[in-house]
Amino acid sequence: MEERRLSTASAASIDRALAPARGVSIRTYNLCFLGLGNVNRTLIRLLEDRAQELRDRHRIAYRFTGVASRRLGWIADPNGLDPHAHVAETNVARTLPSTSSGQALSAKPQKSDQKLSDVRDWLTKAQADVLFEATSLNVETGQPAIDHIRAAFDHGAHAITANKGPIVHAYRELRDLAAARGKKFLFESTVMDGVPIFSFFDQMPTVHVQGFHGILNSTTNVILGGMEDGLTLDEALKKAQALGVAETDATHDIDGWDAAVKTAALITVLMDIPVRLADIEREGIRDLTPQALRNARRDGWPFKLVCRAQRVSGGVEAIVAPEKVLATSPMGKIAGTSSYLHFETDIFPGLAITEENPGLYATAYGLLADFVRAVS
Amino acid sequence: MEERRLSTASAASIDRALAPARGVSIRTYNLCFLGLGNVNRTLIRLLEDRAQELRDRHRIAYRFTGVASRRLGWIADPNGLDPHAHVAETNVARTLPSTSSGQALSAKPQKSDQKLSDVRDWLTKAQADVLFEATSLNVETGQPAIDHIRAAFDHGAHAITANKGPIVHAYRELRDLAAARGKKFLFESTVMDGVPIFSFFDQMPTVHVQGFHGILNSTTNVILGGMEDGLTLDEALKKAQALGVAETDATHDIDGWDAAVKTAALITVLMDIPVRLADIEREGIRDLTPQALRNARRDGWPFKLVCRAQRVSGGVEAIVAPEKVLATSPMGKIAGTSSYLHFETDIFPGLAITEENPGLYATAYGLLADFVRAVS
Repeated sequence: MEERRLSTASAASIDRALAPARGVSIRTYNLCFLGLGNVNRTLIRLLEDRAQELRDRHRIAYRFTGVASRRLGWIADPNGLDPHAHVAETNVARTLPSTSSGQALSAKPQKSDQKLSDVRDWLTKAQADVLFEATSLNVETGQPAIDHIRAAFDHGAHAITANKGPIVHAYRELRDLAAARGKKFLFESTVMDGVPIFSFFDQMPTVHVQGFHGILNSTTNVILGGMEDGLTLDEALKKAQALGVAETDATHDIDGWDAAVKTAALITVLMDIPVRLADIEREGIRDLTPQALRNARRDGWPFKLVCRAQRVSGGVEAIVAPEKVLATSPMGKIAGTSSYLHFETDIFPGLAITEENPGLYATAYGLLADFVRAVS
Repeated sequence: MEERRLSTASAASIDRALAPARGVSIRTYNLCFLGLGNVNRTLIRLLEDRAQELRDRHRIAYRFTGVASRRLGWIADPNGLDPHAHVAETNVARTLPSTSSGQALSAKPQKSDQKLSDVRDWLTKAQADVLFEATSLNVETGQPAIDHIRAAFDHGAHAITANKGPIVHAYRELRDLAAARGKKFLFESTVMDGVPIFSFFDQMPTVHVQGFHGILNSTTNVILGGMEDGLTLDEALKKAQALGVAETDATHDIDGWDAAVKTAALITVLMDIPVRLADIEREGIRDLTPQALRNARRDGWPFKLVCRAQRVSGGVEAIVAPEKVLATSPMGKIAGTSSYLHFETDIFPGLAITEENPGLYATAYGLLADFVRAVS
């Protein structure tokens, strides 16, 4: 990390002050991108788009020093590189970011021949200050993302991920490892695209979350809407894929895995209860017929794939399952890629956040905001 | 400020880590309370209730070293004092905090014989680290709260207020003064009780708010509901006062001043546009008849006092006025003391926060959270 001038003022206080921060140094951070699917490619564009504002308002500059993917291998240059020279421009900013899971559209799990030593060598060669981890979700193990994030902390970089696997499988370990190394482990893009849900609750010290419910998976939401309009599950899925909402393999969405993983992440972080994925009751939308969906909509009680969690003595009860909800209720109105979360807490009996029609950049934005948080 | 042991770890990182923070010092802060109406008295109780958690989780301790009000005068003791020995226990935790304006129920503007030198002497004698400013709102001038906050920064204390006057009349000056002194100027309790609206957007660097709309005044919301049920304005007001929602003098609520001041605060801070109160078109609920309200509700389009702001070339257009809204729309469902804010931004096209039936402690909680933010 290069420091042009030392200063004790933090970027956070500058942001609050909104003032041109004379006398405060601009720091330049070396950024590395692991996984070059839609999320990280959109992030690179967004960083370029906001470069001036990051510099002027937050006193943050950056250079790209590492890109890596299954196809590219490990590319690093501590003096900076042009990611566009390595990234195929297809899909970027033409399709929606994968709002269903925050993962790359096309990335596959890293092959086993990409050994941990490769990641370490790459981070070292790139002199990485920040790792953006956006490889594909492995629901069963959270790997290889967990190893990548461990490697980042060992190297001395902040780790920012759009991957829910590490939260569900290794949250406490990675949190404590980050704290021990004085680095940040941030993951706002894992739930509700880039809306700062976790940071929102960071801003509510001593507030205790008793439970929550909501709609968190866009793919099933779009599919259910299509089936209400008369499409079969397969036709509705193809439509969602054509819109860029659903991934090629939408099994994780349709069977409720994506929603369950997000539910587990919220329970783990916001309710501070360790929960295994297997502890969350899970039912997907595969058994719902177009006829049942049309009837439910006609009656004013459409089906939605609802996530619920409630603190109970000794732990938490959580379920992801289709529910009939009143059409005019907050959840009944969540259509397409919108999402909704309602929390019950001791101070605020009901606190709800609605994200309507997230834009092209919402998921990638969460990583950018995590970057600012990490270095502020 | 007493430091038991020096450490570079911030309370914020401890909070994220959730871990018992061995090796991190506990700091004790001297707290001073100016204005001893419902808000500050509830805050004192809440601080006592959360003392253990503040210490264990955030490594923050405190002692009360100053209380002041028109009735009490200026009481200070740097070794700590028992606020309960000075505070009449009536009303506290028996009635709702004044969710309409976040102000004390009974406090009146400071008398002119309370000179600025008194505040300064009091802060000095109390060795104040944090000032909780909760005197009454003066819509026209923002005084004397502005002077109190200036005095806090001059003394070297953080200033935390539930008073909207300083935001509307002196935001930039106080923000810059705080930054120059390395202190914090925080005011989460001014809008939507203690929900961290301003902090939420602090967590969204480079996001630009284009506009917002919502319902922010509880008193008129409760009154409109009462009038739909057949009460006159006066009867509905008396009911709201009996519930502890409305202040003795509810003119500011009924004529839309409170909602306009909140709208101005949001524009000033979140849209970074300087706006005068006179620039906000304002119409209260005084001209609405019970008959008109009943008819509107019957037709499914009830009246609400709606706040709106929209960025336009060269500034902002803002209005507070009664509107007919669809009963099943998000605003149509905001009843009683609930509130709602919907933002349009460049990254998130629609982002809404709903606060349902805020609890007894919601407004005072915002001051507690500001305290943690200020010293973290």
